Amino acid sequence: MTESITAPQTGPTTEHATGTPAVPEPRHGDGHEAAMLLERARAAVDPVLRAALGSLPAPLRRIALYHFGWEHADGSPAGGGTGKAIRPALVLAAASATGGPAARAAAVRAAAAVELVHNFTLLHDDVMDRDPTRRHRPTVWTVFGDTDAILAGDALQALALRLLAEDPHPAGRAAAARLADCVVELCAGQHADTAMERCSPGDVTLAETLAMAESKTGALLGCACAIGALYADADDADVAAMDAFGRAAGLAFQLIDDVIGIWGDPLRTGKPAGADLAARKKSLPVVAALTSGTPAAAELAALYAAPHRKEDLEHIARTVERAGGRDWAQAQAADRMARAMQEVARAVPDPEAAGGLLTLAEFVTRRST
Amino acid sequence: MTESITAPQTGPTTEHATGTPAVPEPRHGDGHEAAMLLERARAAVDPVLRAALGSLPAPLRRIALYHFGWEHADGSPAGGGTGKAIRPALVLAAASATGGPAARAAAVRAAAAVELVHNFTLLHDDVMDRDPTRRHRPTVWTVFGDTDAILAGDALQALALRLLAEDPHPAGRAAAARLADCVVELCAGQHADTAMERCSPGDVTLAETLAMAESKTGALLGCACAIGALYADADDADVAAMDAFGRAAGLAFQLIDDVIGIWGDPLRTGKPAGADLAARKKSLPVVAALTSGTPAAAELAALYAAPHRKEDLEHIARTVERAGGRDWAQAQAADRMARAMQEVARAVPDPEAAGGLLTLAEFVTRRST
Repeated sequence: MTESITAPQTGPTTEHATGTPAVPEPRHGDGHEAAMLLERARAAVDPVLRAALGSLPAPLRRIALYHFGWEHADGSPAGGGTGKAIRPALVLAAASATGGPAARAAAVRAAAAVELVHNFTLLHDDVMDRDPTRRHRPTVWTVFGDTDAILAGDALQALALRLLAEDPHPAGRAAAARLADCVVELCAGQHADTAMERCSPGDVTLAETLAMAESKTGALLGCACAIGALYADADDADVAAMDAFGRAAGLAFQLIDDVIGIWGDPLRTGKPAGADLAARKKSLPVVAALTSGTPAAAELAALYAAPHRKEDLEHIARTVERAGGRDWAQAQAADRMARAMQEVARAVPDPEAAGGLLTLAEFVTRRST
Repeated sequence: MTESITAPQTGPTTEHATGTPAVPEPRHGDGHEAAMLLERARAAVDPVLRAALGSLPAPLRRIALYHFGWEHADGSPAGGGTGKAIRPALVLAAASATGGPAARAAAVRAAAAVELVHNFTLLHDDVMDRDPTRRHRPTVWTVFGDTDAILAGDALQALALRLLAEDPHPAGRAAAARLADCVVELCAGQHADTAMERCSPGDVTLAETLAMAESKTGALLGCACAIGALYADADDADVAAMDAFGRAAGLAFQLIDDVIGIWGDPLRTGKPAGADLAARKKSLPVVAALTSGTPAAAELAALYAAPHRKEDLEHIARTVERAGGRDWAQAQAADRMARAMQEVARAVPDPEAAGGLLTLAEFVTRRST
């Protein structure tokens, strides 16, 4: 089933979610359409982002431009690597789906604000997690130091909320409140993640792991979609449905990402298969396996407690699979995607209007890097 | 002259700033009145702050309540040490001075937001500066670790901007934009401070040091006063005057604080005299002395470059004084206070109405801890 989730999609289909573990195929989701949506979002928000970063005092601007991939560490121009603009694209697609082109145009500033918040959390997470690379470049803390990475992140959060505070659109205020709430949830998710990293594997429950993934990954995707709907003046129920759509799609993405982190193709993912196992990460399939109550679960616990040997990785991966971790993650991903489709259908009954959202949901759960 | 700045004030006076180095005595500033203003501000904002912190997810709430002095590290209730509420008091005094009691009542939420931003920067600054104590207690990073201190700070910034986004008052939006701008300036100030710490003393100019102090200390005091005026629907010129008042008072405070850090009474300041010299801090009097072009400046540079010996501290302090660092700082402080008084007089011609602001300005430039 991984094949059907991660292989490039060959074309649109009219099949809908049925509650079976099969991943629903959105009507509008081919890779080309997703790429176009992301490119259009990038083109719309980049001028706003560049203006926002350009307003920073010089030393902070330099750090931020490096992080966004627009400058090298020495301040010379660089040509990109700014990420896929999935979150801005979701803001714009949600605005478009619920309010048409006018709402989409009105939401560009908010889309940039969401992208700024995403990048603020990346800057800080990389400091806390000591991650050395991000988008194939050395992370800010490795180049400029922890202090500059923390300060640049702080400034990006402020820029995001200032963009919304200065937005003359009536939705700006509610969007700012929602984005600030989301920041708190992202912080709680990162807190849970780092706390769980310190736990022994037997002390982590599946419910905790799912809640952490929803806070860390689902919350901002949900917030992006909800903010888009706010700019379309959607009612509370539709805003909530958009939020639920983004959260469900975000969790599906995380589940697929975790599957790829264990069994994925290194040529596609850019990281060696088994990297998450080598790092003893308590990813969703692993925790599902550890808490499965099967004989393979006990075996896996012993393997996770043993010192790291590279030749064990394939054996650990097979053990996770025998304990049901892989099947569980794939079924969960399918369930979340089905839920996402239901939420879209609730808020946007016209399938034509919902197309962009479905395309992006399909894209994030198929992305491989 | 330090005496006249730091000694307890004996009573109100009607003398005004005359541009002489003498520190002007505000009409309404006795210590008791300042204490009352601070206590009233604390009473007004504490319920808003407690509700905001109470809205945090449990692990972040626990860290924040510890930082605010409301809980011990184990989660049991603690009785204070929350700081002096100078910034909230300035918000409320500025609102009151420019718009009377109704404006003051309307600005309580904004006063709490400013206090949240202040505490967010304290949490992060302590991580970057590796400061072990804050308000006579171990800092958050020493108790909970860097990650939790960073995350709690991030969450407090979000709470601050959410408070303003959710404020139904028409000034909420402009206040949020102004507070976000101020966060960027605070980050730039902290960046300059840490960068200057790494410079050799000869490479730091007095203009840079003053600019850093204005960003780090003046900006938030200015923002607090400007936000208060926004809630009184003051015009742009009066808002700008309030900002300039707070900045000038903030810089006067920093100058006095730096004087105390070298020559102050340890019994009053809680830190040993000469502590800033022992840490080779490039405080304002030291940089003024180093850049004075006097023979004592060269002597001081040599002393600052030499290895630390406790018995040298008194000699270094005398050298800073001989190079004119002490006189310069005191004259500058007096000038800034005079400027602050002029700005108040511009925005609030009625001295009775301006009383609270003058009292607080006097208080911050006399405080000793």
